[in-house]
Amino acid sequence: MKALFIGFGNVGRKIASILTRERDRFPHLWDLEIEPVGIVTRSRGSLVDAEGVSFNEALSMIEGNGKFDMNSRSFSQTGALEAAQNLEYDVLVELSTLSIERKGEPAVSHVRTALSRGKNVISANKGPVAFGYAELAEIASEKDCRFLHETVVMDGAPVFNLARCTLKGCTVTGIEGIFNSTTNFVLTKMEQGVSLEEAVKEAQRLGVAEADPSHDLEGWDAAAKTAALANVLMGARITPYDVIRTGITEVTQEHIAKARANGSYLKLICRAKPEGGGIKATVGVEEVPDTHHYAAVTGGGAVLRIETDLMGPVLVTQEDPTLYDTAYGVLDDLLTLQRSMS
Amino acid sequence: MKALFIGFGNVGRKIASILTRERDRFPHLWDLEIEPVGIVTRSRGSLVDAEGVSFNEALSMIEGNGKFDMNSRSFSQTGALEAAQNLEYDVLVELSTLSIERKGEPAVSHVRTALSRGKNVISANKGPVAFGYAELAEIASEKDCRFLHETVVMDGAPVFNLARCTLKGCTVTGIEGIFNSTTNFVLTKMEQGVSLEEAVKEAQRLGVAEADPSHDLEGWDAAAKTAALANVLMGARITPYDVIRTGITEVTQEHIAKARANGSYLKLICRAKPEGGGIKATVGVEEVPDTHHYAAVTGGGAVLRIETDLMGPVLVTQEDPTLYDTAYGVLDDLLTLQRSMS
Repeated sequence: MKALFIGFGNVGRKIASILTRERDRFPHLWDLEIEPVGIVTRSRGSLVDAEGVSFNEALSMIEGNGKFDMNSRSFSQTGALEAAQNLEYDVLVELSTLSIERKGEPAVSHVRTALSRGKNVISANKGPVAFGYAELAEIASEKDCRFLHETVVMDGAPVFNLARCTLKGCTVTGIEGIFNSTTNFVLTKMEQGVSLEEAVKEAQRLGVAEADPSHDLEGWDAAAKTAALANVLMGARITPYDVIRTGITEVTQEHIAKARANGSYLKLICRAKPEGGGIKATVGVEEVPDTHHYAAVTGGGAVLRIETDLMGPVLVTQEDPTLYDTAYGVLDDLLTLQRSMS
Repeated sequence: MKALFIGFGNVGRKIASILTRERDRFPHLWDLEIEPVGIVTRSRGSLVDAEGVSFNEALSMIEGNGKFDMNSRSFSQTGALEAAQNLEYDVLVELSTLSIERKGEPAVSHVRTALSRGKNVISANKGPVAFGYAELAEIASEKDCRFLHETVVMDGAPVFNLARCTLKGCTVTGIEGIFNSTTNFVLTKMEQGVSLEEAVKEAQRLGVAEADPSHDLEGWDAAAKTAALANVLMGARITPYDVIRTGITEVTQEHIAKARANGSYLKLICRAKPEGGGIKATVGVEEVPDTHHYAAVTGGGAVLRIETDLMGPVLVTQEDPTLYDTAYGVLDDLLTLQRSMS
């Protein structure tokens, strides 16, 4: 499959590495044939070649200079939207990061552009699913192409593909869980007696939290994931701005101690449920009894609980995910596409 | 799809009810078109009609007399193997119960017969997967038909279909979990101070345990599920007799108290891992720390943890399942088949 990659950060480079340098290690990916025809970045330059860009060369250049080499045969100044509009590819792989302030743009436009051309899309960026799912899914359906996005919630752990493949006979009647790793890590650290500030610093040291952790701490990442799940699994038409949201910024050691005295842990719980003809979505700190499934989700873990009309609740839990998990979500979607095209 | 049902116990009747009397409640099943051409039972007689057997009539007869009416137009003395061999159908739905003593027979033969004719098979009976998977999967592959069996482990909760659809890029490197509801229910009750005997009696009253609970208590059901998972997900060629197995029959209140003093719970843990070129599978009682995911799996719940080469461990947890969950596994497989045939 000819693939256009938008973004080449940690996830993109891990995907490239798994498909080249680490290929020998993963036999179940050996029949996946990906030919990158473009790798477009915002600040590192772009590589474009209809005959195929070299993942190995791209990795070496980033490792060497932090950017693509202007002297490379494939070097290009093409921007992402232009590439999505003009290049020939089978799948657009959208790996840029979410902008809450820009309401998912420019990723929403990249995805819309590709789907409108009848091209398949895989998005690891939450924006298109959290801000524009209903419209984008409709375009994909009209143009008979696929819009896949497994990595958007809980990395590669089965969430959207699970619902599509294994809950297809059910109506999803509610979702909840712990979707944001950073806040869960911080709350786990705080239980060990560390202050919020110290816990955030440790998360940053370990690469769990970003340099600006405010989106995680204020619950925006959790809200985006809740909106994404509600939109895809429950037919909602909400955005992260519709989610009733509190983060963990106000949580203190006193709150933690009070919860522990009740035999409980504090967790940032996300929920979406039908209410008054629509879907009500919330993100907020709750006390969870220590015997509850959610209490066992510590550190960078996450959990999703799905309620349906027919099957009893199913929980999918992820232990401490790494970059391989994030990459896997995209790779699994690529395999899904390749099989549906053969 | 024309379907031949072998067995019409609780699960078969729930499937029939969901597809007829309860149909209005489950919109995501409305495009599932099942035409039963035979319902064959061991002790209640059989109904066979190439033009279609009535689920409603079948349900009414069982509810009325506990068996099919010999005066019914469709009544037949046809046995299961004969029906599998001679009737025309698109899918054989094997709903009979596992016989450990007979090494999965006669279900293994029913399934082999259908697959050898190029007919699809859905088995809720663990026998064919636990005792004959490698051979049966090979026949299915040769004859280009499907052998599905979601319900065999954790009812309809996504297990086999999850691995097939969402972990297709991974090699499964280990599985473990709590697979048997009855023993988990009994251990949970014992933690509340009840003796093993009393706990079993309560499980029987609630329909969680069978009249003869020995297969559950001795770990045979867990061993069959472990073998099934090892065979399908890890390419093992083992049977329940190859699983190193202890049940819960020797567990006393003293053991429970000792575990609690250590901050632990006793759980019947199943495992399969590569060892010495093969797969080592075990079932046995272990102490689980109260902060562990497994500790939160109480009563009739179950959990499967899958390790892979690429993705971090994923856990699928089921809360208290009912007959709807068991029926759903078969219904989901029927939907999978119908979609692959259209």
